[in-house]
Amino acid sequence: MSAGRHPAYERLTRRFARIATVNETASMLGWDSAAMMPSGGAAARADQLAVLAGLAHGLLAEPGTADDLAEAEAAGADPDPWRAANLHLMRHAHTRATALPAELVEAQARANAGCEIVWREARRRAEFALVAPALGEVVRLVREAAAALGPALGLSPYDALMDGYQRGIGAADVAPVFAEYERFLRTALPRVEARQQAQPAPRRPEGPFPAAVQEALCRRLAEAAGLDFAHARLDRSAHPFCGGTPTDVRITTRYDEADFAQAIFGVLHETGHALYERGLPEAHARQPVGEAAGMAAHESQSLIVEMQACRSDAYLAWLGGQLRDAFGGAPEIYATGNLGRLWRHVSRGFVRVEADEMTYPAHVILRFGLEQAMVGGTLAVADLPAAWNEGMRGLLDIAPPDDARGCLQDIHWYDGGFGYFPSYTLGAMAAAQLMAAARRDEPGLDAALAEGDLSPLTGWLRARVHGMASLLGFNDLLRAATGKPLDPRDFEAHLTARYLA
Amino acid sequence: MSAGRHPAYERLTRRFARIATVNETASMLGWDSAAMMPSGGAAARADQLAVLAGLAHGLLAEPGTADDLAEAEAAGADPDPWRAANLHLMRHAHTRATALPAELVEAQARANAGCEIVWREARRRAEFALVAPALGEVVRLVREAAAALGPALGLSPYDALMDGYQRGIGAADVAPVFAEYERFLRTALPRVEARQQAQPAPRRPEGPFPAAVQEALCRRLAEAAGLDFAHARLDRSAHPFCGGTPTDVRITTRYDEADFAQAIFGVLHETGHALYERGLPEAHARQPVGEAAGMAAHESQSLIVEMQACRSDAYLAWLGGQLRDAFGGAPEIYATGNLGRLWRHVSRGFVRVEADEMTYPAHVILRFGLEQAMVGGTLAVADLPAAWNEGMRGLLDIAPPDDARGCLQDIHWYDGGFGYFPSYTLGAMAAAQLMAAARRDEPGLDAALAEGDLSPLTGWLRARVHGMASLLGFNDLLRAATGKPLDPRDFEAHLTARYLA
Repeated sequence: MSAGRHPAYERLTRRFARIATVNETASMLGWDSAAMMPSGGAAARADQLAVLAGLAHGLLAEPGTADDLAEAEAAGADPDPWRAANLHLMRHAHTRATALPAELVEAQARANAGCEIVWREARRRAEFALVAPALGEVVRLVREAAAALGPALGLSPYDALMDGYQRGIGAADVAPVFAEYERFLRTALPRVEARQQAQPAPRRPEGPFPAAVQEALCRRLAEAAGLDFAHARLDRSAHPFCGGTPTDVRITTRYDEADFAQAIFGVLHETGHALYERGLPEAHARQPVGEAAGMAAHESQSLIVEMQACRSDAYLAWLGGQLRDAFGGAPEIYATGNLGRLWRHVSRGFVRVEADEMTYPAHVILRFGLEQAMVGGTLAVADLPAAWNEGMRGLLDIAPPDDARGCLQDIHWYDGGFGYFPSYTLGAMAAAQLMAAARRDEPGLDAALAEGDLSPLTGWLRARVHGMASLLGFNDLLRAATGKPLDPRDFEAHLTARYLA
Repeated sequence: MSAGRHPAYERLTRRFARIATVNETASMLGWDSAAMMPSGGAAARADQLAVLAGLAHGLLAEPGTADDLAEAEAAGADPDPWRAANLHLMRHAHTRATALPAELVEAQARANAGCEIVWREARRRAEFALVAPALGEVVRLVREAAAALGPALGLSPYDALMDGYQRGIGAADVAPVFAEYERFLRTALPRVEARQQAQPAPRRPEGPFPAAVQEALCRRLAEAAGLDFAHARLDRSAHPFCGGTPTDVRITTRYDEADFAQAIFGVLHETGHALYERGLPEAHARQPVGEAAGMAAHESQSLIVEMQACRSDAYLAWLGGQLRDAFGGAPEIYATGNLGRLWRHVSRGFVRVEADEMTYPAHVILRFGLEQAMVGGTLAVADLPAAWNEGMRGLLDIAPPDDARGCLQDIHWYDGGFGYFPSYTLGAMAAAQLMAAARRDEPGLDAALAEGDLSPLTGWLRARVHGMASLLGFNDLLRAATGKPLDPRDFEAHLTARYLA
């Protein structure tokens, strides 16, 4: 009897389906919190999410899971690769869920929630000292968690944290990739800046652009990109995100009536995430192997749509017509060259979330180094601002005017999120690598983009990425789709072609 | 040591809070299903709600609950009435949850879901025969459930079903009240009809009335009635309802651009429900004693706002001005007399949900008799259409032209809902009784209504009804608030004053 059809494995699939279904309810309520909930519902919602998390954790951690895992594993390797991978991922999830003592999990939840509140005030006042004690406690607990997770997973403490966001990728994979990019940036960035200087200044569309008109256009663009609104919604929230479940995916954006670009590229970005969720294989729904392959893989899908496809000359040529139909204005503004200069402008800034695709990795490289040092105990929280500013000078040769635009800008660390930042740049690099491969395999890809048609790209992604779910790890997924593991040179080639050709 | 502070009681309060929190998530997802969810999310949503129901049931039914109940009860009566009532209600919930075998609950869920689907088609085609077999199975299982619940609760089978909607009220309480109303209606209805005949026909406002304008007005009216949108939302759904949780209540309505009355009175109705939820005592949140007192009590709160307060001459005088400001039109249309003739028109119709407040109880009385007979086994499903039509002739002297406007019109039975219908009319009668008492206690009540101010009424309700939650049963709640148990004569006096004065 193979493990796949072993009764213990069947019990596990039912148990994990139940856990996934509980997590779906939490995902829906998370969407509701950001997009719908009146402020007065926040306290009850926090309780609801805590109870759901406790129930899901309880289902995973209860003794029956361990017994069934041992029994299914003892039955031997399953010849079906999906079932084999699923069992492996069940074990992995169980190990992560049971490695931390409940008191530590609770202490982290409390410390993170408390620190986040202080951080908001500290950022508003640009006073790092305000939040330093709270961050110190968060880091202390993160180190404790990492020290417990690492041995359980057979990973270093920092890699055990990274594993929580993108399984199978560790600092040793990332460091050389980031080092290579640093070298590239050092010569490429000044050349791009010089080239930009020689170009005419872009003309900006003049608003106001009514939010309702932007929203209707965003919906059309998401639909044209392949999002089926029988299985999706588009709503508004303070920060764009993609939530919900694979058959009912909820994306959000925000509308600035002075500038529609943020809403449009926000929606295209979230549409990339949404198409990934929609393309996950139904046959493995609610099983670990049926989930998206991780945060870096997810970011590759948002960025391949937003950055690779929808900021390409081909797509901008089509998008310009759509924009002019929606908002009116001089044809020159909507010419591809002008839109490219407007929306593909490279500049050294202080703030990650405002960064262009070329300098964005520098922001991530900075954080990658600093968070490894904090988790490793070689950087004290008190020394973070100085280390940050020194890093920014080294990477982009700029000096943040204050900590609000420095080490206080991102919520991640103040909410206990260590090991996540690399995912952004791994995703950007993977997107470029996947796009290069898709272009090779689908010669009509750019011609279709010029008509607003993403289907050659998304069809290719559905087969090579979406439909593969978590069958393969990040590098094996890339290898199967593109012939090689993560390779930053495709991203560099993309930037060279776009900004220096 | 009193039961209230007994460790077993404390464990129970934590357990019931957890159960209530799970039920809150289900309530939010129920709202989402009706107001937000794309059609493609329906299958996953059904699974989510089933898993949540299973988890809540599991928490209630697991052995620890029974042990703690026995231990807390053995500690003796608690001197605190809230704690004593809470323990009693915990036992009651546990009895209901454990009285039915799991296989019966599952069989009912399947039969009800299946029957509901067939019913939609049968109603569309006005063919009762189509759904008769499925309804037969639903009734068979309902009888089985009632036979199991009755002995566990010490109630007759039908009363055990009623108890699921309005605890503490049985057929013996309802029958004389309904019989009295039937007598009243027999003489009052022809007199009202004669009087209406003698009046001028009402003038209808002429549309279209844009949905967005209606929606903004509805929101203002709900706010003026006391709903705080920091703890509430107003959205759209196919059927108006009130969902969510006490600190985050979600009401919905629908907009007909040809006639705004449906939306406005729908919102005022749901606002009444919402104010009840908002007014439940925070100190007892998530405990059985802190919940609304039942479906009849809930309906009394929607109807006291919609029917008693907001269709009064005083309120209509104010509302007319609001409507004219929102929609424009001739002043005569918005005069109180015209609005009263328009929105307080009595007529013998076939359809319950379209009925006026005077004939509505006849629809309920019909169903009360028929469902008792079906549960009691004296009326076969095959004989339902004939019995229905005969009943309608007896009560309102009209003959439904087809079963779609007869016994197929309501979803309740076809979805397994037996014992619910009386709640509508018990609520209407309680609303009149509460209004009469509130008018005695708050002499400025009508003067305030004439300025659109419901606060004298809602303040009185908060103290006498909302804030009492489930401390008292339905009749004791009425007795404490009005000095007597349910008395249909207050409702009759209200109708006489409104329609025959």
